[in-house]
Amino acid sequence: MAVRNPKEINIEQIQSILNSNNLPVPAIGTGQAFGEEGLSFTHTDPLIRQKAIERIKNQITFAKNFNAVVIIGLVRGVVGKGEDRDEAYKYMLYAFDECASFDDNVKIVIEPINRYETNLLNTVSESLEFIEELGKPNVGLLLDTFHMNIEEPDIFESIKNANEKVFHFHVADSNRWHPGAGHIDFQEVFKTLKHINYNGFVSAEILPLPDAGSAAANNIAHLRKLFTD
Amino acid sequence: MAVRNPKEINIEQIQSILNSNNLPVPAIGTGQAFGEEGLSFTHTDPLIRQKAIERIKNQITFAKNFNAVVIIGLVRGVVGKGEDRDEAYKYMLYAFDECASFDDNVKIVIEPINRYETNLLNTVSESLEFIEELGKPNVGLLLDTFHMNIEEPDIFESIKNANEKVFHFHVADSNRWHPGAGHIDFQEVFKTLKHINYNGFVSAEILPLPDAGSAAANNIAHLRKLFTD
Repeated sequence: MAVRNPKEINIEQIQSILNSNNLPVPAIGTGQAFGEEGLSFTHTDPLIRQKAIERIKNQITFAKNFNAVVIIGLVRGVVGKGEDRDEAYKYMLYAFDECASFDDNVKIVIEPINRYETNLLNTVSESLEFIEELGKPNVGLLLDTFHMNIEEPDIFESIKNANEKVFHFHVADSNRWHPGAGHIDFQEVFKTLKHINYNGFVSAEILPLPDAGSAAANNIAHLRKLFTD
Repeated sequence: MAVRNPKEINIEQIQSILNSNNLPVPAIGTGQAFGEEGLSFTHTDPLIRQKAIERIKNQITFAKNFNAVVIIGLVRGVVGKGEDRDEAYKYMLYAFDECASFDDNVKIVIEPINRYETNLLNTVSESLEFIEELGKPNVGLLLDTFHMNIEEPDIFESIKNANEKVFHFHVADSNRWHPGAGHIDFQEVFKTLKHINYNGFVSAEILPLPDAGSAAANNIAHLRKLFTD
């Protein structure tokens, strides 16, 4: 569930819809705060950085209702032209530390995102190093096969290296359509997830193409086939 | 060879360097005119479109010296926010027609480029349709494995579909490093090129990482190994 600002959400209403449809919420996406309001952990303006941290703390409180993980995608920020990379990294580290300490019981996941969308934490190995430096057990990784196809030298080795730090998992094929529309070997992806004993959710974060209904149906059909083959 | 403006180039000097090093020039890259001067085939300003066409005509004259193909990469343009896609497409068609008619003997190649860099002609099939509509035998495709990894449902099928319209070929691994640094199966790439009887050049367009010298050396070593295995 992608939420820009949890303060504007009626939790009872959401929960009643979820209950009546028997739906869990595995994860809360937070990228809209960056896309629509420009909030980020690495902004040069300390007030905006603080607002971003407060927003994520609200998301943590919100996520707790659903036992969901909080996804840190683009809200972590970028290093802008002429800006200092080390400083941005330090701001990001501070923000993650603040958020991770806010509630030990809520899991926060870093999504390695491809180079075209950010220049901070593109690869699994960079993100694992960052998590080690941070030293917070409730911070792990959200791996996404679309991004991994661009950034990881070997998608399956990267999943193995991330191992127990994989807290959430996104499937999308190489072209960001539903699994089966591109050239990623999802059979091997699931074999690798099994190998690392991953037992969390697998969510599709895919383009609604050719339309949203077909994308969802094709996703389910392809994944089901892999599990029964 | 990437050239922003051929008018600023001393051809004799270049040719003497090429001769003394026994180097051919397979292709002329033209993207800098877009990156540095904003020239594009689809700009809403007709004067800028005309300047882009004139620039490519100069590139055609320039390329003829080396028997090189002229690459139309980003200079083809993008559809900007709020701009009309059909109109942009029409402008692009007109510009390609002008350039292709300028000298039948010089080959012009369209490079399908991934969605993050342009929103016009991302895939092989879109580009083949465009070439068919254009109807100029001297216009073909430059395929690049890095872009294909993101856009093509099946890289090898796409190469086969492009068939004799493949006029030039770029190798780069899935992470845009040298072949061997990512997960593209270059053995299969070369098998497929052989299958379509491609006998043109294969150029590496790769990031100079970890440094330019190593990238070039690693590229050559990896490709040579594939050809001797």
